[in-house]
Amino acid sequence: MITPDRLDAAVLDAAMGRALEIATRGPEGGPNPRVGCVILSPDGHTLAEGWHRGAGTAHAEVDALSHLAPGEARGATAVVTLEPCNHTGRTGPCAQALIAAGVAEVYFAVPDPGAVSSHGAQTLIDAGIPAQLGPRREQAEKLLADWLRDARRGRPTVTVKWATSLDGRAAAADGTSQWITGPDARADVHLERSRHDAIAVGTGTVLADDPALTARGEENGAPLAQPIPVVFGHREVPADAQLHSHPRELITLSGDDLAADLDVLWKRGIRSVFVEGGPSLASSFIRAGFADRVLVYVAPTLIGGPKLALTDLGVDTIDDQHRLVFTDVQHLGSDLRLTAEPVAPETPSTHPTSGAH
Amino acid sequence: MITPDRLDAAVLDAAMGRALEIATRGPEGGPNPRVGCVILSPDGHTLAEGWHRGAGTAHAEVDALSHLAPGEARGATAVVTLEPCNHTGRTGPCAQALIAAGVAEVYFAVPDPGAVSSHGAQTLIDAGIPAQLGPRREQAEKLLADWLRDARRGRPTVTVKWATSLDGRAAAADGTSQWITGPDARADVHLERSRHDAIAVGTGTVLADDPALTARGEENGAPLAQPIPVVFGHREVPADAQLHSHPRELITLSGDDLAADLDVLWKRGIRSVFVEGGPSLASSFIRAGFADRVLVYVAPTLIGGPKLALTDLGVDTIDDQHRLVFTDVQHLGSDLRLTAEPVAPETPSTHPTSGAH
Repeated sequence: MITPDRLDAAVLDAAMGRALEIATRGPEGGPNPRVGCVILSPDGHTLAEGWHRGAGTAHAEVDALSHLAPGEARGATAVVTLEPCNHTGRTGPCAQALIAAGVAEVYFAVPDPGAVSSHGAQTLIDAGIPAQLGPRREQAEKLLADWLRDARRGRPTVTVKWATSLDGRAAAADGTSQWITGPDARADVHLERSRHDAIAVGTGTVLADDPALTARGEENGAPLAQPIPVVFGHREVPADAQLHSHPRELITLSGDDLAADLDVLWKRGIRSVFVEGGPSLASSFIRAGFADRVLVYVAPTLIGGPKLALTDLGVDTIDDQHRLVFTDVQHLGSDLRLTAEPVAPETPSTHPTSGAH
Repeated sequence: MITPDRLDAAVLDAAMGRALEIATRGPEGGPNPRVGCVILSPDGHTLAEGWHRGAGTAHAEVDALSHLAPGEARGATAVVTLEPCNHTGRTGPCAQALIAAGVAEVYFAVPDPGAVSSHGAQTLIDAGIPAQLGPRREQAEKLLADWLRDARRGRPTVTVKWATSLDGRAAAADGTSQWITGPDARADVHLERSRHDAIAVGTGTVLADDPALTARGEENGAPLAQPIPVVFGHREVPADAQLHSHPRELITLSGDDLAADLDVLWKRGIRSVFVEGGPSLASSFIRAGFADRVLVYVAPTLIGGPKLALTDLGVDTIDDQHRLVFTDVQHLGSDLRLTAEPVAPETPSTHPTSGAH
């Protein structure tokens, strides 16, 4: 923590506390961070407040400045929970907005570790505006824990999902698999789809099942948000595939280098990917160590035979097994929903150097 | 319900109620039924009571008679919750004991459907002692539900157990499988072993793992009861196998005809079998429809590859799947213990005719 030159430390601390408080009004678990901003006059009273309401809306600093008349922020102190961004997204870079508004100094609780959006502080300093770490970093890091983890490793969070019989099968010997899990489990899958930025399948699944990859249903009376469909593989998606009717534009990737593919998705703003299969694609993500979470819908049925929910995971001997920990167990109708995560996070970055931020 | 010739119906009903009450003092879930007996004088007051305390101890009628001096039961009415047995087990047939004691009449709430032990009523009638159905049959059937189910189908209850990774594997590709599940799950397996009359494995498991098949540990401060080890298959159990040191004598069966094999076990007094594997034996029991309960210890780990917990179950298309229902889900350390039972009990009898009782 830095002692402010112009403001009393207690005033700065209270302003940051307030910024953190209003930050929590933003949506939890979304692709964007929850950020709050308080603009203080030189004598320490609050001129404006703002917070970020989610992807596509104004960032906290811009939101706060929007409440002020032109010139009103001149000479003010901006207190913000996260380092102002430096990239030109849908809403413009915050560092430039603060410069344009004529603020005199900026305090932020947490530096932005992102390779794309970070270094807004440097931009401010280069423009002659002191921008430094303020108080409450620990509290701010806690609020942003998931988002910071993602930003530091610079790749989307991956959930690998499959539905299975109690003996690990995805289908009967002839490939039939309808209704292994019940309606409650299937509705939950749609909800999970809507909570991810992208939903991924292999070309084998596209050719075999022609899936729509939409999130169907409602939550709190509103239609579910639609994830971007992503297809991995070399085979062509047929021209008449249902995927082409998806409300979001399809992304196709080779799947040859999952790290590179995840990097492509990350750079397109995709923070979370829901891998739905088939067994080969799911196994590839696990084998490569990119499964941050596995979500298994287990039906109380036994099928046996050759159609497995996962194929080969490169485990030759038991010491190589992919150890997880169960983080959630739920009954969904007559099925079970099991969530597990790596014990020691298997989270190799697609940007080995960005982890040093 | 039959109106008694000598006793008031209310007196008989009260005596049967009391017999059912003391029956519940017997051990629940054991191989033997919980039975109570009240001996009434000709004028309807209680001379003695008895109940069955579990395998190897006196049956309820013999227990009740043991409280009376020689001759004291002469002319009495025996009120018992289950038809007196007719077979010479470790404690002698109850029908003969009642005849020898000189009781004048017998009322029982439920006829014994067992092929071996039933028809004690006929033996009594042949000896000139009226033996007939008394009141409270429904209540008595409820108390004896599990035991009656077993007795009616005339074969042991089968639990098929396996330990598995979250993706249905029993071992890594090289066969190594140590410590897939943790210590709590393994302790629970020993407890489950002790609660079954017999524990079954295939010869493949004997040759690969040389298991002791003992129940190790304690319950309520006492060492666990030891199940009888049963080995299915054609290969020889090696002379130096640990199984030969088991405190109970080994039973070997071919496994060619599981119905016949279960019949052999039933006739040796085995009411419950715990099938531990390997995958082939477990799959055989499920395929044949003899799995009354499956008990799956699921470790939060992913293994992939060819070593499956179950092999082929004869399910060519999804309509043939073996549908179950989850009846219990427990956390055991970091593992899960899932119990499932057939939806429509898949319980073919090994004595197709005995079900008609």
